[in-house]
Amino acid sequence: MIYLDHNATTPPAPAVLAAMLPVLSSLWANTSSQHGLGQEAKRALSAARATVARVLGCKPVEVIFTSGATEANHMAMRGLLAMAPPERRRVVFSSVEHAGHLRLARALAAAGVQVDLLPVLANGTLDLQAAQALIGPDVALVSLMAANNETGVLMPVAEVAALTQAAGARLHVDATQFIGKQPFNFSTWGADAVSLSAHKLQGPKGVGALLLRQGVPFAPQTLGSQERGRRGGTENLAGIVGLAAALELLGDVAAEAARVAQLRDALEIGLTRALPQTHIWSRAVPRLPGTSYLRFGQLSVDVVLQRLERLGVAASSGAACSSGGSEPSHVLTAMGVPADEALAAVRLSLGRTSTQEDVTYLLNALPPLLAPLLHEEVLTAP
Amino acid sequence: MIYLDHNATTPPAPAVLAAMLPVLSSLWANTSSQHGLGQEAKRALSAARATVARVLGCKPVEVIFTSGATEANHMAMRGLLAMAPPERRRVVFSSVEHAGHLRLARALAAAGVQVDLLPVLANGTLDLQAAQALIGPDVALVSLMAANNETGVLMPVAEVAALTQAAGARLHVDATQFIGKQPFNFSTWGADAVSLSAHKLQGPKGVGALLLRQGVPFAPQTLGSQERGRRGGTENLAGIVGLAAALELLGDVAAEAARVAQLRDALEIGLTRALPQTHIWSRAVPRLPGTSYLRFGQLSVDVVLQRLERLGVAASSGAACSSGGSEPSHVLTAMGVPADEALAAVRLSLGRTSTQEDVTYLLNALPPLLAPLLHEEVLTAP
Repeated sequence: MIYLDHNATTPPAPAVLAAMLPVLSSLWANTSSQHGLGQEAKRALSAARATVARVLGCKPVEVIFTSGATEANHMAMRGLLAMAPPERRRVVFSSVEHAGHLRLARALAAAGVQVDLLPVLANGTLDLQAAQALIGPDVALVSLMAANNETGVLMPVAEVAALTQAAGARLHVDATQFIGKQPFNFSTWGADAVSLSAHKLQGPKGVGALLLRQGVPFAPQTLGSQERGRRGGTENLAGIVGLAAALELLGDVAAEAARVAQLRDALEIGLTRALPQTHIWSRAVPRLPGTSYLRFGQLSVDVVLQRLERLGVAASSGAACSSGGSEPSHVLTAMGVPADEALAAVRLSLGRTSTQEDVTYLLNALPPLLAPLLHEEVLTAP
Repeated sequence: MIYLDHNATTPPAPAVLAAMLPVLSSLWANTSSQHGLGQEAKRALSAARATVARVLGCKPVEVIFTSGATEANHMAMRGLLAMAPPERRRVVFSSVEHAGHLRLARALAAAGVQVDLLPVLANGTLDLQAAQALIGPDVALVSLMAANNETGVLMPVAEVAALTQAAGARLHVDATQFIGKQPFNFSTWGADAVSLSAHKLQGPKGVGALLLRQGVPFAPQTLGSQERGRRGGTENLAGIVGLAAALELLGDVAAEAARVAQLRDALEIGLTRALPQTHIWSRAVPRLPGTSYLRFGQLSVDVVLQRLERLGVAASSGAACSSGGSEPSHVLTAMGVPADEALAAVRLSLGRTSTQEDVTYLLNALPPLLAPLLHEEVLTAP
């Protein structure tokens, strides 16, 4: 099996599982319990928090463990918005946020919050001029992903942070796809809150974090004594230890990014050479190293994925969470891509487990399967 | 180590870990992915949901997996309240709900919802007359725990369900302490929504569920495509499989309850015989089988827990989540217990791993340590 769906999720690293197992079997006490077992669990929680803070460049007190990025995103938006001054009720989301996050945008709008969407350009990058116009003194909160999950396009977080700060607004960044794939340091980014998920970086599912800058007014959403009253519920210590272990494993992120980018570039060069009808979105702009979002002419994505499956290759039609639907990607739509082209979109996402052999195999095996279909497409074109 | 803190959390059963490990290491794909790996994970999710539904007596579609009971509680209250007719804005909580849940009650009140608290009687049982008076046609939602986490007192869910139905209101039940300790069947209870947590019944931390009766209007709180759009976020499949395995392990709950109740009763009889100053709260009313909430005269709980720790016994001063504080338990306060007595409260909670040997050991070892202190207390009493 060749796994080219790292943006959907990643296989947990063996070292992550090795860190989690003793917690599951032995360190199961409630961290809030005063007895020795509970205190031992509490120390493990503190140690994991310190590790997360060290790797991500924040203070331990700035880490709020959650059940994942979706919860962190909701918590950040609702928790920051609740504390915004009453004259600031406008909220700005980028138009290419994760589908679940845009559902929240619609829910806020339905609840009476004025929500504006930041457009992107045809190449998938954020329209910074529009951002400048939209982020004004009546804005409470801006939400911008650090990297798009479909195109891999890197978003101008620093520039938007400057705009947000100038407007006196708060900035939330969904860094779910970014952390682990690009060097990251919370303290230098200028964001008030950053969401992340363990399972995108070889950690377990069901755990993530919200990094919340110290001193930023925040209204807790899930109430309870845990996480300094900012997120209630008995801690998922095994998951948290797994997240810390996954972050610690990241090592030299820039070197790994260069390795993966080289594989991705070789894949793209090989595919476009073998199949000239290949079109790659956002190829000319800074992207995540492992992401390739492309179409083969207008071959239906179902046909392409079926051929890939036959070759033992796992890939995706875009975001896993909206795959299986027949709607064109909202990201491509925001980029102005026509529906018939968008419905041909295939996402190949490489990651830490990807190898040169994977790329070589795919370049040898896929073109012969697709070439006849593309030839047929040319012949039957209206 | 003798573990008498089962109401705080329970050790995961070996069979639960055995069910989780292959999921963590091999079934890690995203259940939303269309490729073979994703579909395999999706089938495992469906199978776990079917198991949970079968054991709990509900339909698979009525199961919404969450990160635990706290999330389920919040989701139920906010999600049901949002769909209530505008003329029904009053919400009723029992006054002895879990501390985290009462924080939510205060947050709702601060947001302008009229919140009423159902009182309890001196023996810890719900004041049904007050419930009858408070649950009227202007009530949107009632929240009642199935069993109290401190006293173990069983709450009159069926009676309150009847009152709630008569008033046209919705009923949410936090069954976190109840499920696994008493026979349970969702379809016969009359509740609209029931919360539960895996880690209270030998499952893993970080996973739970909200059972939501089919057809009940509900506004999703964490948005995304998962769980039929009712709870977004990539599923914690390993945790979900662990929850299903833990529920399947429960077996004959009534028989296990009888076994644990016998141990608890032997412990209480032995302690009161050896230390006549022992006072046991709610002893005369129906309680969870393993819970004993007591004080030894007015010996400070810190002193008692220290002696227990010295004996290798893990116990608690009440709810784990509020332990370590110097405030008297809100549950005992609601029962009218004076602060000096409440601050002496010790909770011994037995469970599936408890044995006759644990009880015998404690009955032999604890009284000799406490008797001199109690004697001294008598001598120095004002």
